[in-house]
Amino acid sequence: MIIVINGKASDSHVEKVVQRLQKMGHKVNISRGERRIVLGVIGDAKDLSSVPLSAYEGVEEVIQIEKPYKLASKEYKSFTTNIKIKDVVIGGKEVIVIAGPCAVENKKQIFETARQVKSSGAKILRGGAFKPRTSPYSFQGLEEEGLKLLAKAAENTGLLVVTEVMSVNQIELVGQYTDIFQVGARNMQNFVLLKELGKLDKPVLLKRGMAATIEELLLAAEYILSEGNHQVILCERGIRTFENYTRNTLDLSAIPAIKELSHLPIIVDPSHATGRKELVGPMSKAAIAAGADGLIIEVHPKPKESISDGAQTLDFGNFNKLMSEVAQVALAVNRMVNLK
Amino acid sequence: MIIVINGKASDSHVEKVVQRLQKMGHKVNISRGERRIVLGVIGDAKDLSSVPLSAYEGVEEVIQIEKPYKLASKEYKSFTTNIKIKDVVIGGKEVIVIAGPCAVENKKQIFETARQVKSSGAKILRGGAFKPRTSPYSFQGLEEEGLKLLAKAAENTGLLVVTEVMSVNQIELVGQYTDIFQVGARNMQNFVLLKELGKLDKPVLLKRGMAATIEELLLAAEYILSEGNHQVILCERGIRTFENYTRNTLDLSAIPAIKELSHLPIIVDPSHATGRKELVGPMSKAAIAAGADGLIIEVHPKPKESISDGAQTLDFGNFNKLMSEVAQVALAVNRMVNLK
Amino acid sequence: MIIVINGKASDSHVEKVVQRLQKMGHKVNISRGERRIVLGVIGDAKDLSSVPLSAYEGVEEVIQIEKPYKLASKEYKSFTTNIKIKDVVIGGKEVIVIAGPCAVENKKQIFETARQVKSSGAKILRGGAFKPRTSPYSFQGLEEEGLKLLAKAAENTGLLVVTEVMSVNQIELVGQYTDIFQVGARNMQNFVLLKELGKLDKPVLLKRGMAATIEELLLAAEYILSEGNHQVILCERGIRTFENYTRNTLDLSAIPAIKELSHLPIIVDPSHATGRKELVGPMSKAAIAAGADGLIIEVHPKPKESISDGAQTLDFGNFNKLMSEVAQVALAVNRMVNLK
Amino acid sequence: MIIVINGKASDSHVEKVVQRLQKMGHKVNISRGERRIVLGVIGDAKDLSSVPLSAYEGVEEVIQIEKPYKLASKEYKSFTTNIKIKDVVIGGKEVIVIAGPCAVENKKQIFETARQVKSSGAKILRGGAFKPRTSPYSFQGLEEEGLKLLAKAAENTGLLVVTEVMSVNQIELVGQYTDIFQVGARNMQNFVLLKELGKLDKPVLLKRGMAATIEELLLAAEYILSEGNHQVILCERGIRTFENYTRNTLDLSAIPAIKELSHLPIIVDPSHATGRKELVGPMSKAAIAAGADGLIIEVHPKPKESISDGAQTLDFGNFNKLMSEVAQVALAVNRMVNLK
Repeated sequence: MIIVINGKASDSHVEKVVQRLQKMGHKVNISRGERRIVLGVIGDAKDLSSVPLSAYEGVEEVIQIEKPYKLASKEYKSFTTNIKIKDVVIGGKEVIVIAGPCAVENKKQIFETARQVKSSGAKILRGGAFKPRTSPYSFQGLEEEGLKLLAKAAENTGLLVVTEVMSVNQIELVGQYTDIFQVGARNMQNFVLLKELGKLDKPVLLKRGMAATIEELLLAAEYILSEGNHQVILCERGIRTFENYTRNTLDLSAIPAIKELSHLPIIVDPSHATGRKELVGPMSKAAIAAGADGLIIEVHPKPKESISDGAQTLDFGNFNKLMSEVAQVALAVNRMVNLK
Repeated sequence: MIIVINGKASDSHVEKVVQRLQKMGHKVNISRGERRIVLGVIGDAKDLSSVPLSAYEGVEEVIQIEKPYKLASKEYKSFTTNIKIKDVVIGGKEVIVIAGPCAVENKKQIFETARQVKSSGAKILRGGAFKPRTSPYSFQGLEEEGLKLLAKAAENTGLLVVTEVMSVNQIELVGQYTDIFQVGARNMQNFVLLKELGKLDKPVLLKRGMAATIEELLLAAEYILSEGNHQVILCERGIRTFENYTRNTLDLSAIPAIKELSHLPIIVDPSHATGRKELVGPMSKAAIAAGADGLIIEVHPKPKESISDGAQTLDFGNFNKLMSEVAQVALAVNRMVNLK
Repeated sequence: MIIVINGKASDSHVEKVVQRLQKMGHKVNISRGERRIVLGVIGDAKDLSSVPLSAYEGVEEVIQIEKPYKLASKEYKSFTTNIKIKDVVIGGKEVIVIAGPCAVENKKQIFETARQVKSSGAKILRGGAFKPRTSPYSFQGLEEEGLKLLAKAAENTGLLVVTEVMSVNQIELVGQYTDIFQVGARNMQNFVLLKELGKLDKPVLLKRGMAATIEELLLAAEYILSEGNHQVILCERGIRTFENYTRNTLDLSAIPAIKELSHLPIIVDPSHATGRKELVGPMSKAAIAAGADGLIIEVHPKPKESISDGAQTLDFGNFNKLMSEVAQVALAVNRMVNLK
Repeated sequence: MIIVINGKASDSHVEKVVQRLQKMGHKVNISRGERRIVLGVIGDAKDLSSVPLSAYEGVEEVIQIEKPYKLASKEYKSFTTNIKIKDVVIGGKEVIVIAGPCAVENKKQIFETARQVKSSGAKILRGGAFKPRTSPYSFQGLEEEGLKLLAKAAENTGLLVVTEVMSVNQIELVGQYTDIFQVGARNMQNFVLLKELGKLDKPVLLKRGMAATIEELLLAAEYILSEGNHQVILCERGIRTFENYTRNTLDLSAIPAIKELSHLPIIVDPSHATGRKELVGPMSKAAIAAGADGLIIEVHPKPKESISDGAQTLDFGNFNKLMSEVAQVALAVNRMVNLK
């Protein structure tokens, strides 16, 4: 940690900061320049994160040097974590595709979708039973009925299941039906939920919040990891910017960035990020080219009749085409998509 | 609702959209231009929000005309809602100031703060017992012990209490000690929490999410209102932008904007928004000048020794000065701060 | 300047960076921690800004400690610069209001506006003759004809003139008619233009770019100052964010921030920032309460018939009302508006 | 164009708007709902863009339906524009790579770079002679001397040249040495410059501004096109967001978006967008996978000794590796990179 003090600060002001640091057991390195005095505390300064050093007179800036997360860091573990669920491995050479409708609507819809996405090469079935909708007047999901249909459709076809859990009081119920808990963008900093999921032994798909930095995403993952659950899959799904042609701005540079900073696998959701079905294909290919470990894609038998997010949803034909295109890009970057 | 169709779309494409709308009971107005065909559905189109009209071939854009919220709107109620808690009214001519530490730390700290902010004119005591911290390694709050101290300190001084509830499973506990539930920025779209609070008869202070538009804030309020609880106080606390001198960018134009769109009272949190104590005074005055119904300010006996957010926290002297300055600005805009 | 090196870097990697710094004449302070090595260069490191230290192997981060601007800084000059033009002083106790139409349209419009805003208390007349419009098909301004009308209208009424210069090749022409050059938000980093204006002896009103940080605004000012022209007036006019109810997000916290960092006066443009006439009044009052040295307001005899930006333009009645309200807020913060 | 009027507006308020539209020769379609009245003007409403309809009483919203650009639109021309310069075609099946240093520094540097990037497969040499630097104290470029070296190095190796022109008064000089004018992000809305370049017969590489929407980028292109110069190459180079691990946020979804909206070719600058050399490779591959027509990459013989932007600059080895990787991705999406 670096503490920058204004050159006009009196010696006693500097002394007060130094004493505080020393009292906490830190060695302090003092460098005096013409206009600034710089204090350096090298090494583990995690205990200083709660000390309001910028409240001290004369202090202009406090700069964190150490990364604030630990278990999620590349320093903790240098190779990509492989998350193995039955015969599916996320984080390995194979690029894993998750597909399914935004919301589970009825038996026919989810069963048909499961069969089709499976035959195109998807390995995991998605589908919302509890839906976090911006408006209270929008469809909120079939709840347990939806979970049952989803699990049954997956079982029938040999797919795994991922579905969203929105609150601690849904964990038990959702956990009965899903192989992977999804934490949505709006709940990325629902710390109570993260901690509870951290106590379980089931993988968590953690979506980046719309206004979350990469560091904050890793800190949210750290909440889960630090409780003991090391099976976290990160998901880039677009951040909020001023651009409004797309629903959000898909930040693909987050993929190689996270590969530099962390060992956790990362997948991409081009459907929610762009909000436009014509953009889903190109951005899926781009995601794989950038190094993503997987994709999560919205697919529906009849997008025009879907209850939500139809504009960004692929039909079976377009999904099938996407899979074969994505498979080619995967090969070009030494990855692979298993189309069967 | 307006649906814009590409001029190159075939008649049958247009027909399909029209039929869908008519089947749902809507009258459709068709205007054909050279390059675009525009369909208009006038009146209540709420049921259309779940229909993926943009998934239809040829559809270029779907434009919502009606506001998506109802109970929160000015059309529902044209005058500002007054929220009365004991002898305090939020939304009236008096500007209400809430003050206190970021986190409740110990008895001495919270009792002393309560006494001092009361004597400077604050009407409500704030203080976190459950703290939503970005890092799992930061102080997470004293929990029930903190709630008890907070309630006791308020009772002693005749202040009301506001404190954060982070999750549905904390509602019952927190509700025993607080007069107002605070929903933090990170939980603005924790819809399960909002719905539960909507079933209670206790005011909710709802903070704007860092990436939330004004419309989304009003829709979050609508979640509470639509369950029956009409006592919602909005709070502008800064949005996330590229500017990094301040912690967030305080969007004061949200105040007159909300006064145009809604009847709900709105207060401002200049401490979290700016993250710098030198900016708290000027932005408090600006908030009142812009029409805010109140302020929520971080105050601590010794900011340098506070456990969190010290950089943005005022000491008693500065808070007292702020109150008298704010009172003058209030008078200049025909409001008032009751300093006793 | 602080250089953070990965703890895994070899000694020779560290040595290479140190040598580079020493060869340039800097003293280097080395602190070794468990996981990071931190090099500190204290004092003037301006010559290092061109050295790509992050390109050296092992370097994780390079942190600027010194502010990158000098002449614009509070350290260079601790009290607010007063810019005196004839009998008007910007940066003093008096809050100066600039008013006028978005674009000069015709003689009647600009003369009538000049008379009216003068009688309401404005001291400077604004009006565009060269208009930077997003679309090439929008009205681009009356050019020299507009400048003549503007200057004449101002002369008639005893107002000063401010108008925009969009390019180096317009400087001479515009300079013949204006008292203050305005550099628009889109040209804030038109460095060729800034440098040329820096060589003249005429005040420059420099608007913050839509994506410019406060630091970048001060660096743009530094371009003018470093050429010798010390008469720079900064202007906050809204930054671009995801919020779309307002045209831009007015960042009023930039006012006290700039008062902390710089001696240059700063005014606020609530018309362009909000894009909505109902918000201009509240945000004008808020700007003054936050410490602004002036305002620039769009006024037109008949906003409905104005050629551009009508939605954000006040008519004479509303401008007059705004002036008297603003005057009261000014008094409440120990400033004043001279209404005559 | 759609005009939404509040349902509480009186008939005479509605009438005034209608009359204005009719007086301008437009047919108006009126739809009355319970809470809103919607006026529709179908067809070319370009002349209405200057009419301040939102200034009329009762008007809540004015919605543009027609795209504001014309010559840049897909409707004007449905297939991608091929820009042919000597034997290089931009916008065809071949993906074109532009490479070179941030700034021309000296003969050895630029000649060596030219030779090496040519041998790796680049077709165009980049290098700045006039540099738009955020700080006036940073290196501003070698100016004409730099242009001469750049042109000579390109000539020697059979590469084309692209270099930045920052202002109208540099056009003539820069035009003597370059094959393509580059307009930087900071000048994307320097409309005087755009218009002048529109009058010439030389291709323009137009970089997206940091806060520019896709629509604004296309409108900036329209400034050039509408003056007669139809050779515009667009360039995505990152937009400004809250994320700070990367220098900017590369918005790759702009590529397929622009392919939907416009016929202009688009290339990507991963160096400036990310600001980190480790991210340049992955994002180059992602750009090609997303459909980009080319890349512009910063390459320097010794990045550590480069005068600017060293952190994001590749050395020859890494550039060569990137080219062969990019070539594979190009094949996977039915494009190609000609490595000779």
